[in-house]
Amino acid sequence: MTGFFITLEGPEGSGKTSQIPLLADYVHSLGHTVLLTREPGGTFIGDQIRKVLVSLDNKALTPQAETLLFLAARAQLVEEVIKPALANGVVVISDRYADATLAYQGYGHGVDLDVLKKLLEFATSGLQPDLIILLDIEVERGLRRKTDCGEWNRLDAYSVAFHERVRKGYRSMAEAAPHIWNVIDANRDRDLVQADMRQAVAKTLKSISPHHEG
Amino acid sequence: MTGFFITLEGPEGSGKTSQIPLLADYVHSLGHTVLLTREPGGTFIGDQIRKVLVSLDNKALTPQAETLLFLAARAQLVEEVIKPALANGVVVISDRYADATLAYQGYGHGVDLDVLKKLLEFATSGLQPDLIILLDIEVERGLRRKTDCGEWNRLDAYSVAFHERVRKGYRSMAEAAPHIWNVIDANRDRDLVQADMRQAVAKTLKSISPHHEG
Repeated sequence: MTGFFITLEGPEGSGKTSQIPLLADYVHSLGHTVLLTREPGGTFIGDQIRKVLVSLDNKALTPQAETLLFLAARAQLVEEVIKPALANGVVVISDRYADATLAYQGYGHGVDLDVLKKLLEFATSGLQPDLIILLDIEVERGLRRKTDCGEWNRLDAYSVAFHERVRKGYRSMAEAAPHIWNVIDANRDRDLVQADMRQAVAKTLKSISPHHEG
Repeated sequence: MTGFFITLEGPEGSGKTSQIPLLADYVHSLGHTVLLTREPGGTFIGDQIRKVLVSLDNKALTPQAETLLFLAARAQLVEEVIKPALANGVVVISDRYADATLAYQGYGHGVDLDVLKKLLEFATSGLQPDLIILLDIEVERGLRRKTDCGEWNRLDAYSVAFHERVRKGYRSMAEAAPHIWNVIDANRDRDLVQADMRQAVAKTLKSISPHHEG
């Protein structure tokens, strides 16, 4: 594969969704073709699955079923969109990916992490990001941001304690693999966050794609 | 658990769906409370997932995503419906269950059977049927039955060779665990098939539930 795969992770309200288009503009300005995807969704089929996941009518969704739906949407996205793009040299930026499952279902809901890793391996055929950017934000601040915007759905309706576990999970994973993860303090002004994101991306694009060196 | 869990398996057009209500009537006449479920579906959430699976617009669905969607619907069904019913002493009859995943995704699509067993363990929390009835029918005959009825959807649109692998898979599993599986020749008249199904159910209900002995 000749492309480059960047994933954005972070707790609710970390600003991922508004930061991503700005990051895409930047990567494009460096001369790359950029593809933006989001999780869950990002394909015709994945968007149907997303609807099931976010619907407030589906409060009875069990943790196992939720996990499997996220994985189904991701499997579709990987085969139909991400792999072909990477094969064509595209820089793929995904709003969440496999680590979201580990953070939310594993650290958040307490599903066994080793089991989740096996499920993820099946769903993604082992495709790993080249760079994972974690927009780290205090839980209360993140949740407040989301409610202020009126973007409240079933996935946000868990307790603050749940979101604290998710945040902690993300931070543990980042600490364990600092060569792939880049943790950015998203409690700050959005321009500062974006600047850090661009720096992280520029550094890794440079180190990995020889045709962008020098 | 004090209930009894019966699953019906079989290739396309084996007559499962029309035989099941008759079997339920019989079990009810023996004095049991009976619950019928179907796969995929059987819950409010599962029915939404079923729609994604059977839609002819979703031909791009990958084998992994398909498997994960079936498992998600099943996970929801097990926790929300089957386990509570069994705990209340109900006889649960399911139109397809875990073995359908092994037959269709494993034997049919060639997904590794050991991987599938791990996924199934996660989705079902290890819940196994007490009796699996396989309605075995020649592939061409089964497919002809389905098209005659106008019941044609995306899941039927695979090749005959695929359905041959599915049938062979079902038969292998039945041979490997004859104490749980009961294979019935569904090429015959429907009354004869129903009679055999009732006999199989009566035998196992008698052997397992002490309050129905003698």
